[in-house]
Amino acid sequence: MTGRIRNQRFAAKVVEAPEAVELIEPGANVGMSGFTGAGYPKEVPGALAKRVAEAHSRGLPMKFGLWTGASTAPELDGALADVEGIDLRLPYQSDPVTRAKINSGLMDYTDIHLSHVAQRVWQGAFGKLDVAVVEVSGITEDGRLVPSSSVGNNKTWLEQADRVILEVNSWQSEHLEGMHDIYYGTALPPRRKPIPITRPADRIGTPYLECPADKVIAVVETESPDRNTVFTPPDETSERIAGHVLDLLETEVRSGRLPRELLPLQSGVGNVANAVLAGLGAGPFDGMTAYTEVIQDGMLALIESGKLRTASATAFSLSPAAIDRFNRDAAAYRDRILLRPQEISNHPEVVRRLGCLAMNGIVEADIYGNINSTHLMGSRIQNGIGGSGDFARNAHVSIFVTPSVAKGGAVSAIVPMVSHVDHTEHDVDVIVTEQGLADLRGLSPRKRAERIIANCAHPDFRPALQDYYDRALQSSFGLHTPHLLGEALSWHQRYLEEGSMRPAAAN
Amino acid sequence: MTGRIRNQRFAAKVVEAPEAVELIEPGANVGMSGFTGAGYPKEVPGALAKRVAEAHSRGLPMKFGLWTGASTAPELDGALADVEGIDLRLPYQSDPVTRAKINSGLMDYTDIHLSHVAQRVWQGAFGKLDVAVVEVSGITEDGRLVPSSSVGNNKTWLEQADRVILEVNSWQSEHLEGMHDIYYGTALPPRRKPIPITRPADRIGTPYLECPADKVIAVVETESPDRNTVFTPPDETSERIAGHVLDLLETEVRSGRLPRELLPLQSGVGNVANAVLAGLGAGPFDGMTAYTEVIQDGMLALIESGKLRTASATAFSLSPAAIDRFNRDAAAYRDRILLRPQEISNHPEVVRRLGCLAMNGIVEADIYGNINSTHLMGSRIQNGIGGSGDFARNAHVSIFVTPSVAKGGAVSAIVPMVSHVDHTEHDVDVIVTEQGLADLRGLSPRKRAERIIANCAHPDFRPALQDYYDRALQSSFGLHTPHLLGEALSWHQRYLEEGSMRPAAAN
Repeated sequence: MTGRIRNQRFAAKVVEAPEAVELIEPGANVGMSGFTGAGYPKEVPGALAKRVAEAHSRGLPMKFGLWTGASTAPELDGALADVEGIDLRLPYQSDPVTRAKINSGLMDYTDIHLSHVAQRVWQGAFGKLDVAVVEVSGITEDGRLVPSSSVGNNKTWLEQADRVILEVNSWQSEHLEGMHDIYYGTALPPRRKPIPITRPADRIGTPYLECPADKVIAVVETESPDRNTVFTPPDETSERIAGHVLDLLETEVRSGRLPRELLPLQSGVGNVANAVLAGLGAGPFDGMTAYTEVIQDGMLALIESGKLRTASATAFSLSPAAIDRFNRDAAAYRDRILLRPQEISNHPEVVRRLGCLAMNGIVEADIYGNINSTHLMGSRIQNGIGGSGDFARNAHVSIFVTPSVAKGGAVSAIVPMVSHVDHTEHDVDVIVTEQGLADLRGLSPRKRAERIIANCAHPDFRPALQDYYDRALQSSFGLHTPHLLGEALSWHQRYLEEGSMRPAAAN
Repeated sequence: MTGRIRNQRFAAKVVEAPEAVELIEPGANVGMSGFTGAGYPKEVPGALAKRVAEAHSRGLPMKFGLWTGASTAPELDGALADVEGIDLRLPYQSDPVTRAKINSGLMDYTDIHLSHVAQRVWQGAFGKLDVAVVEVSGITEDGRLVPSSSVGNNKTWLEQADRVILEVNSWQSEHLEGMHDIYYGTALPPRRKPIPITRPADRIGTPYLECPADKVIAVVETESPDRNTVFTPPDETSERIAGHVLDLLETEVRSGRLPRELLPLQSGVGNVANAVLAGLGAGPFDGMTAYTEVIQDGMLALIESGKLRTASATAFSLSPAAIDRFNRDAAAYRDRILLRPQEISNHPEVVRRLGCLAMNGIVEADIYGNINSTHLMGSRIQNGIGGSGDFARNAHVSIFVTPSVAKGGAVSAIVPMVSHVDHTEHDVDVIVTEQGLADLRGLSPRKRAERIIANCAHPDFRPALQDYYDRALQSSFGLHTPHLLGEALSWHQRYLEEGSMRPAAAN
């Protein structure tokens, strides 16, 4: 028995990864751990991909259903997609190889709200879960599992799968033990009860995952780092966006609409999110909390600064430098950080009750405030909706952030009509670009259009947007949401044909 | 004191409607009662419209913000819209005059989720609520208010408004007393607690609305019926849709995915909804419950049949014949029906916990399962989203129903791309037309398209949809959600230009 596997029944099942994957029958639905590149299995997926490649080289078909928490890493999604070993992938991915296969029509992908995954699997919406492959950071003397750097859907996979393969990763910090809060009180209706969280810090479960040793068909030992999340310092665009968001929050506090310690923060990942968090670190708010999906570098820094009392999430997504800081001081962080199953971190009931301040990135917004979070030019999936819908719909204030242009200025993030809708006009309170902020709360569609064009659009595209809107006001079928249907998607079409949304004269 | 006003302080404030409306200052935001044509004030709105018309005839501007529960009636929405007395209307309307003013650009309309209204008003998103005009069916000796045939946002209006005008309508059944459940436990974050409902029958509040007599500036006595909802017996199309829905429910029960008594029903109003409810009345399920917005004729019939144990809603929407039946037997119904504030009847927390079976009508769906519930040809508002989003997003199964064609066959309810999105692909489980049912749960966009085209489209439009999809598979930018952007909205454009979505050759 190594130090991390402290139970004999589990220790007796240790095998190498190639042996473990022989126990997964072709065609199986496999639930793997992993959320934003943290806590995914490190060796079994690669061994499985190798087995698929060998089968395919002999002309034998072999594919698997692959379900996770959210995004994983090249050695999981990338490896399996590369050999075309995935039949249906869900619920969120951000891997370039996987994305290419989906957009080539070689792989099915079901993009669903992250809070919906567990209940959908319980309902049997995706068929039977055959095998769970879950990374843990240790196994206790009495056979309980110490989760690793993400929780995601692991509780559900361990419960629903017939057979379980565990990876015990000794690279994960030993100090993770005690940080998790695994709630075993969920149920299918009509047996559901209130989720008893009224503050982000509330612990309602146990620090351990449970799994009968009988179900465990293999244990694989690993010592591998999580996917490195590169942290790049905020650029000027991100800082300007962050500045507008901070102005909004300060105005809300001054007007008495938000308490001085704000309400629980939810933040997506990436440069803009880190810039907002950095701004909050330098800002006037103390005693803040977060109820969110992911602890990224900026969130960790806010904890270090003492301004963030508690962060509840379902996963880490840290840079190597931040991981080092975390490991040095894990005991101190443990009182301030909780990792929960994603059905709880993203639960509409809890998000609504706590009144989260939701901040999420987007692909594009239209002049009426509809948001596309997922599709390039209406057809090509980028990543997925993730938890943005869970938070935006139920937030106290739902804020969407984006630079006003992309592709070196060829693409406007503000368009006449979005080419795909992930968040409807009913769920979007505030849109922010580096140009400015449009507070849409309470506004009719026409008033929203005026504000979005004036405040958020890039000056290079503002006149064309205003022109579209003005002409729509003249000749739209209805004037509630004025549109020229023959032209509404022409900016996207122009991009596909000419490589730019800019009018021909301006190219 | 009449029989309905049993408290002297309130009785002393009785005036006629024209006198009452003089107490509403021009430009005020006015919160009126009313939900699906039930429980709206009957005389004050008309008197206010008269005052507006007189002001306008003298060249004086006069407009009001008009906030309600949901739809009202010609004598409220219609009268005030007709004289252009409404500045901003929210959150749902179905009045032809109001609709025409909105679509002519003469009136602002903010269409929001019905569960969001109360918290938005508390947040101040629409400005200050100045005056509440609320119909009640009586006032008790100790000054509590007996609600009438809808609750809607009345609790919020009475709390938030500076001044209150009550209409006491003696036409409303005296037996309504005791039927309501007004919950006073809501709050703004961070002070929110779990909503303690675990079954539709749970009573968590009091049967009365509270309002300090000091705030009441006028009491108007009326004796006027609610708007009559015409009940037309289901036609063949509705019955076929209902048949498909019942088949689905029976399959779910047989496979063990639903209990024999089903889960709490939510149903929109109208012919198709009544046909489904009639089908349930003739079907194999006993001991059912409903957690919904509205008690319509079909719901009352289900209660009478003994098959529906409890119905929780926020309003009635009955035909005159059904109202007679209700009034004859109100005491018997009182144990089976609860009317709650719409923030509770539609609360995401409760809808998700109970696992409602949500059934809602639509304007159109696209081949990937996105739903347009509100806009004709992308720009003209029909009614509004109502509570469909509150239920669909959080339902155990979200079902959307529609005849496959409209306008005498000129318009297909299944289109390549919807012209407006109210429910995204992430929130739509099942689409049903008279042609058949598409169960989309767990499917990728391409698989959804195959099923929707094959099962739901009208045969007259099916080949053109299949042709669009096949060509999109050939030349779409991405193949996750294949689209031809130059053509995606061409069906709507053709309807605007030619009066039909049918291809020219087929017209």
